[in-house]
Amino acid sequence: MSLDTTSEIEIIKVATSKIDQVDFETLSFGSVFTDHMLVCDFRNGAWEKPIIKPYEPFLLDPSAKVFHYGQAIFEGMKAYKIEDDSIWLFRPEENYERFNKSAVRMCMPEVPEHVFIDGLKQILQLEKDWIKKGKGNTLYIRPFMIAIGSGVIAQPSTQYRFMIILSPAKAYYSGEVKVLVAEHYSRAANGGIGAAKAAGNYSGQFYPTQLAHNAGFQQVIWTDDATHTKLEEAGTMNVFFRINDTLYTAPTSERILDGVTRKSLIDLARREGINVEIRSVLVSELVDAAKDGSLKEIFGAGTAAVVNPIVGFQYKDVYYELPKMENSFALDLKEKLTNIQYKLAEDTFGWTVEV
Amino acid sequence: MSLDTTSEIEIIKVATSKIDQVDFETLSFGSVFTDHMLVCDFRNGAWEKPIIKPYEPFLLDPSAKVFHYGQAIFEGMKAYKIEDDSIWLFRPEENYERFNKSAVRMCMPEVPEHVFIDGLKQILQLEKDWIKKGKGNTLYIRPFMIAIGSGVIAQPSTQYRFMIILSPAKAYYSGEVKVLVAEHYSRAANGGIGAAKAAGNYSGQFYPTQLAHNAGFQQVIWTDDATHTKLEEAGTMNVFFRINDTLYTAPTSERILDGVTRKSLIDLARREGINVEIRSVLVSELVDAAKDGSLKEIFGAGTAAVVNPIVGFQYKDVYYELPKMENSFALDLKEKLTNIQYKLAEDTFGWTVEV
Repeated sequence: MSLDTTSEIEIIKVATSKIDQVDFETLSFGSVFTDHMLVCDFRNGAWEKPIIKPYEPFLLDPSAKVFHYGQAIFEGMKAYKIEDDSIWLFRPEENYERFNKSAVRMCMPEVPEHVFIDGLKQILQLEKDWIKKGKGNTLYIRPFMIAIGSGVIAQPSTQYRFMIILSPAKAYYSGEVKVLVAEHYSRAANGGIGAAKAAGNYSGQFYPTQLAHNAGFQQVIWTDDATHTKLEEAGTMNVFFRINDTLYTAPTSERILDGVTRKSLIDLARREGINVEIRSVLVSELVDAAKDGSLKEIFGAGTAAVVNPIVGFQYKDVYYELPKMENSFALDLKEKLTNIQYKLAEDTFGWTVEV
Repeated sequence: MSLDTTSEIEIIKVATSKIDQVDFETLSFGSVFTDHMLVCDFRNGAWEKPIIKPYEPFLLDPSAKVFHYGQAIFEGMKAYKIEDDSIWLFRPEENYERFNKSAVRMCMPEVPEHVFIDGLKQILQLEKDWIKKGKGNTLYIRPFMIAIGSGVIAQPSTQYRFMIILSPAKAYYSGEVKVLVAEHYSRAANGGIGAAKAAGNYSGQFYPTQLAHNAGFQQVIWTDDATHTKLEEAGTMNVFFRINDTLYTAPTSERILDGVTRKSLIDLARREGINVEIRSVLVSELVDAAKDGSLKEIFGAGTAAVVNPIVGFQYKDVYYELPKMENSFALDLKEKLTNIQYKLAEDTFGWTVEV
């Protein structure tokens, strides 16, 4: 992909950047946004001309469908700046394709590539000063789409807004993560929307996650809703289990997000000669492996944290502490993946794309 | 309940009503709104003073959590005006309690009674000219709450907006309704949010419902997501089945909404001497009953349509037409329920509440 400078995107620049007011050393994830945003509306059956304009609030009718029926999807991506000041994306076409899959599942229009990909490259060029060099520094990218049509009849909207907003971020560190295995609550139904990055999937997790917090855990490992016997995701991330020297992760399905970090880690691990088995892991297997010492690691995988090592899990009121590993797969794979993202290692997979 | 005229609700009236521009004979459901709306914000851990003000769009930050994580809930209610010009609500405390149950499940703050109930009564007094007399005419009431806090970290918001908007409505008639029994898609997970009136539950149904439309059906009858053998809801309504002279409807659960119309119809039917069994009906039972002629009626039950008779259903590519009934339970119960709502029959249950 290359930057299409002929694409018709209108750009209205801010008079004065707010970048000097931002302390890039003390960023709280997802709370500071850059000077501009990309906006593209869908009306009368077609996408209008995208516009890059100053970041600002916008007006919506109280009956806008996003408020009542939750037609809303998003993606999470990152941009990286390297020593020579060039800016890179990691597998953006994967996010673009998944975004449009989410759109179809939520009965929303697919976004054209020139809006999503070219629009993203243009706004990143404009905001390049917001991307700081150095491993761990990134610009978090949030493309999203909401239903802006008005009316409280429960039907798909005819009007939508696609936007890209950008938030500078430091390396995401969540501290020691203890997880609770879900015995009652769940995040997705068979035949439901769990595989879509739909807004409603996330708010549904807040209450069970809060209950876990109150009990001293940072995250929930979700199990299948029908039997609560299969391990599926960790918080808002895909989850990997290392039993002896084999890595296990659940297959993607209607209930499990097809994570870009997940699939990249699978490829990386296999290149490293690690045996990776893509199959459902049962809670009972996890407990048995913890008891006999063969369970070595659990980690979440997602764009924000990249890899999130888990120190222990609780199931049916019993807490199982994981061993401290010398040769942690989680830390090794995280290092190798971020080295590719920051162009510190050769990208033999062809995953990185220059802006 | 009585109108608390001492409650501190600020009222800002429109300069000129738009009511004269509205043709009350050709209303499309949920598309026209009255002159005013009620707004009450939650910030710094407390509800602020409610305000009734002109209906208008409002500003939100692009990173507002409702756009990204779908923290949004609502209720549907109606107000009725009778011959003596008095205005009535139907079991408003049921909607109020369910709203707050939805709030808890979605990790949102509960709304105080003086905001929801007294606020509703005050705005209805102000908008009483928008409620037309005559059976079928109603003012549809949409209380809702959205997360307005900004930031794209997947955590509950700290700021919320509760609103009430009002839409004049004619009797809801959806034509002949043929339904498709869901064999693959589903609306709710065990341990999920199906029992909450959460925005995300509705958009998740749009795509499977569109597929049903494309195949010639108006609605989907949802089955349990784990086995697709139990009949659960019809579209966005609870569903009843009449086999011989017994009415069946599924018990409320985490997957099934505790509908006010549903529970009222159960009480009414029992008062009429109809045998009502509250239990899961299997798809196989429905097919068997359709084949042997004992299946007499299927109908949806909800606030908007009250009762929505279904003329036939399809399952595994076979369409089953229902008989035309002389003594339809659906039509009889609808007549009796709306007579109570419009004060045309004695309200022995104490369901109606004067504004």
